[in-house]
Amino acid sequence: SSPTPKFVSKDGRSTMEFKARIQADYMDADEIGTGKKASMDDAEKATEIRRLRFGLEGQFSRDWEYELELDFAENEVDVKDANVTWEGWENQKLTLGFQKYAFGLTNTQSSAHQVMMERPSVDTFSADRAMGAQWRYRGNNWVFSLGLGMDYSETEETIIEFEEKDGEIEEIGLEDESIYGESMFYTTRFTYTPINSNNNLLHLGASYMMMDLDRDTQEMRFRARPAAKYTGRMVDTGNFDSTGSDTYGIEAIYQHRNFMLLGEYMNSTADQIDDEDVEVDAYYATASYVLTGEQWRYSGKKGVMKSPRPGQAISEGGWGAWEVAVRYEQANFLEDHMKYGGDLTTLVFGVNWYMENNLKMQLNYIDAEADNKVKDEYSTQDTNILQARLQFAF
Amino acid sequence: SSPTPKFVSKDGRSTMEFKARIQADYMDADEIGTGKKASMDDAEKATEIRRLRFGLEGQFSRDWEYELELDFAENEVDVKDANVTWEGWENQKLTLGFQKYAFGLTNTQSSAHQVMMERPSVDTFSADRAMGAQWRYRGNNWVFSLGLGMDYSETEETIIEFEEKDGEIEEIGLEDESIYGESMFYTTRFTYTPINSNNNLLHLGASYMMMDLDRDTQEMRFRARPAAKYTGRMVDTGNFDSTGSDTYGIEAIYQHRNFMLLGEYMNSTADQIDDEDVEVDAYYATASYVLTGEQWRYSGKKGVMKSPRPGQAISEGGWGAWEVAVRYEQANFLEDHMKYGGDLTTLVFGVNWYMENNLKMQLNYIDAEADNKVKDEYSTQDTNILQARLQFAF
Amino acid sequence: SSPTPKFVSKDGRSTMEFKARIQADYMDADEIGTGKKASMDDAEKATEIRRLRFGLEGQFSRDWEYELELDFAENEVDVKDANVTWEGWENQKLTLGFQKYAFGLTNTQSSAHQVMMERPSVDTFSADRAMGAQWRYRGNNWVFSLGLGMDYSETEETIIEFEEKDGEIEEIGLEDESIYGESMFYTTRFTYTPINSNNNLLHLGASYMMMDLDRDTQEMRFRARPAAKYTGRMVDTGNFDSTGSDTYGIEAIYQHRNFMLLGEYMNSTADQIDDEDVEVDAYYATASYVLTGEQWRYSGKKGVMKSPRPGQAISEGGWGAWEVAVRYEQANFLEDHMKYGGDLTTLVFGVNWYMENNLKMQLNYIDAEADNKVKDEYSTQDTNILQARLQFAF
Repeated sequence: SSPTPKFVSKDGRSTMEFKARIQADYMDADEIGTGKKASMDDAEKATEIRRLRFGLEGQFSRDWEYELELDFAENEVDVKDANVTWEGWENQKLTLGFQKYAFGLTNTQSSAHQVMMERPSVDTFSADRAMGAQWRYRGNNWVFSLGLGMDYSETEETIIEFEEKDGEIEEIGLEDESIYGESMFYTTRFTYTPINSNNNLLHLGASYMMMDLDRDTQEMRFRARPAAKYTGRMVDTGNFDSTGSDTYGIEAIYQHRNFMLLGEYMNSTADQIDDEDVEVDAYYATASYVLTGEQWRYSGKKGVMKSPRPGQAISEGGWGAWEVAVRYEQANFLEDHMKYGGDLTTLVFGVNWYMENNLKMQLNYIDAEADNKVKDEYSTQDTNILQARLQFAF
Repeated sequence: SSPTPKFVSKDGRSTMEFKARIQADYMDADEIGTGKKASMDDAEKATEIRRLRFGLEGQFSRDWEYELELDFAENEVDVKDANVTWEGWENQKLTLGFQKYAFGLTNTQSSAHQVMMERPSVDTFSADRAMGAQWRYRGNNWVFSLGLGMDYSETEETIIEFEEKDGEIEEIGLEDESIYGESMFYTTRFTYTPINSNNNLLHLGASYMMMDLDRDTQEMRFRARPAAKYTGRMVDTGNFDSTGSDTYGIEAIYQHRNFMLLGEYMNSTADQIDDEDVEVDAYYATASYVLTGEQWRYSGKKGVMKSPRPGQAISEGGWGAWEVAVRYEQANFLEDHMKYGGDLTTLVFGVNWYMENNLKMQLNYIDAEADNKVKDEYSTQDTNILQARLQFAF
Repeated sequence: SSPTPKFVSKDGRSTMEFKARIQADYMDADEIGTGKKASMDDAEKATEIRRLRFGLEGQFSRDWEYELELDFAENEVDVKDANVTWEGWENQKLTLGFQKYAFGLTNTQSSAHQVMMERPSVDTFSADRAMGAQWRYRGNNWVFSLGLGMDYSETEETIIEFEEKDGEIEEIGLEDESIYGESMFYTTRFTYTPINSNNNLLHLGASYMMMDLDRDTQEMRFRARPAAKYTGRMVDTGNFDSTGSDTYGIEAIYQHRNFMLLGEYMNSTADQIDDEDVEVDAYYATASYVLTGEQWRYSGKKGVMKSPRPGQAISEGGWGAWEVAVRYEQANFLEDHMKYGGDLTTLVFGVNWYMENNLKMQLNYIDAEADNKVKDEYSTQDTNILQARLQFAF
């Protein structure tokens, strides 16, 4: 059972539940070739809290839900959810406030329910959480989402100011310079589940996003890490001036009992100011097999998968659920007319141990290879990474 | 009903309740004239989480209350309340720890229960939350508060250090310099409610604060924004050396059914070291009319108003409560013997939609005009701002 | 009663409890002599929130516990606990994740349950909270702990970069430089309680820790403050290059009714690269007498003491529990072959007032004297500090 009770008010209209998520990671990486610099970073290990979430959610009157979630990893605050949802229209949900936007499969699916420790490189294309509105319609075997996100904000950067007088430096000070950016995006996702029986699942989906950039933040870049969080980026186009981008993606899930296939393709075209467009794409395919026979669970509400629950948890004298998985991913971020860029091929082998409903361990072995362009030179870098995670979540 | 249950221990002596507050803002401002620089900032939009609070409060034994509240807006931690209150003496409360000090009407009243999105410019004079003690006596139709706040602290600023040798810079480093400040203040507030019937309310109040500054922080300034949070300050006296200030304020509320008038005047005199005193004042008047007939609710305990509750919430098939309001405010921060300063006149038109007991939307249109002095030149700046807020709070 | 209820799921296997801790401090210190600089810092006062904790803990299935605790003091996030504990083996606990490691008495004992406001200088030797594993075996009257902690991480420091061309500075920028450190430690603690009756307690213990440092962080230093948090360090060896250290400690508690003696000795030897080893030690003895007759409570589970509970709390018309205590401590951080270092003798007089089960006030008067070596010069500095704390904790 979940550690959090669901508190219900006397009139039955208000509820409150708590949420928590701890992901404790260990990583041991070989030398990593970094994209833009085309140099090698030293081999490194990392022990980090990847996510440390605390939140509350529930209903605050008939037809209204609320959600508030914070992340405290790396001893920093990161607001994740701060929104309310209107459910008064049949089959529909309208979420207002700071939220995550449905776009693609791996990105829409919770970070607590991924086959591998880190999302594949298509995640690069997803929108950041932002203030805005999102409307969702759920049909019999389909879900349609439409979102509008806005990030108009001023950020401060510390720069140095000094004066030279008669060849001598007279005064040196630190000054805060403000950078004002406007970004606005529209997202849509449509998923359809033609087959959804006890033993078989077929899910198909398509997503589209339009991103508008304005004023000081007309910069964009595409870059990716090798399926690990604590390394440098192996491929990176570098910043380029842009007014926005168009991104689309297609996705599919096929599940037969304890065997599952996931795949996704995404393509993004960014308008480059005073230059040719930048068009990049990425895709992945994941195969998973749960050795102990349990199945990944389909959430028809959001059109995503949820982790299997162990048939016999170790606290009940069992051995939990065991899963083996492999993922092949490719990110093509190399455009010949660009100064920088690269192609990244990543192979991830994973073992997942679902010890309890709320507790799992993950082990990933990663083999990544990047072909990079830096100005006029091309080079190839390889790396291997071993990483593990302990996750407690409710 | 509120989403948080009130948990009560078996012996009935201990309780716990949760608190949360989300304010999601949108702002669209024209060019803003900044006070001290007398220049214009570009027109800007903002989408920001204005407040994101989480807290708990309750009783921990007969006669004792506790309060712990944090703010996470802008992804930063801001401790709001961390205190305990002794209630063992009849009609009295003694609060110890980190807390807010009663001073004036708009400042004492919760940010979740303001007629307009932002407090008027008299808020400039209020004391920051601080460590200390506050004693409150509640009579039949009056409340008296007496507070002592202290902020003795060392703050670190990053400065640059370098050495010059033989005309060449030998070493450059960033060094943390500590600034030590002592500030101490005394606050009092007395409110009296001669009329408090179902249909009519008359509330009168007076406040006084003495502020002492010592050692490194003997700097003061008066400044104000045009009733919006994400713009620059339109008037600003700039920093001046001071040993402290005396501030007093008077306030009044008149309410007849769904019509309400609020007003406040504050005057502050700051002692200027080696120069004339600086005397500034500010005032405002607010008129509010709840179209759907609901009333603002008077809290006799603190001598402040609380938002109306919708007679028929939208989750009950109604249209919620609708309110229109207007506020005129004036800040006179211009002293002829000062280098900088200005007068700011702000007119705010507001529409509030109380959708549910815990949910409201606010829309403000602002017209502000500042007359600024910068050294020997005088200038006038105008601006218009449109802003909206979605607030969920319990 | 505690303000937090213990929520239990219907199947009785999952629980949730909240934790909170507020420590509001006031300090008034005379001039402080700082170790390495051998100069005097001005007299200062401080009003600070020393700790502001919020957390939750409980069981998430038979045999598993979870713990999540955060600190928000100084408006910063500090993850304290993020771990799970396996209890499925008899008499044993295995904790995985981010946690505190048992080492010595004062360090293992909670900061909410110390006789004086700040821990004595032996605390310098304790390991920081870290990711890792800890195993605990509890016998009849003994506890054995074995821990492994790891901190592999990259931290970023802001440094300045600039270029000189033809004698002129062409460009100045702030750059983030990453420092990668590997530290790993093993801790053990064994405590034994030969006498543990109603009126008499004898507890003996020994601890050992091995610390390994690698790559960029091969720096170590020993330093101590005079039993206060908001002053400078009075003794400090300065940084020296090291590959690690060995530290051992012995501890004892003797309690007869409302009288208690605590003592601890710790010795650390750090390997110094290209130089002699650095060997330092520290010890303290504390005597406490609870005037109102209550006793400190022994926690056999962890081998530490917990604060007395007032026989008659002030909310029950009593005067709470009153305790007087004195602590003598010595830190010998002076090695003749080192450039910097010092010996610190600190005497602390304390009065504790346990007002309620969850509320106490502490008053400490401190007299500290340091004998410092700075290069070839020796000097002596004295200081006196008065400090007070209000603590609310559950």
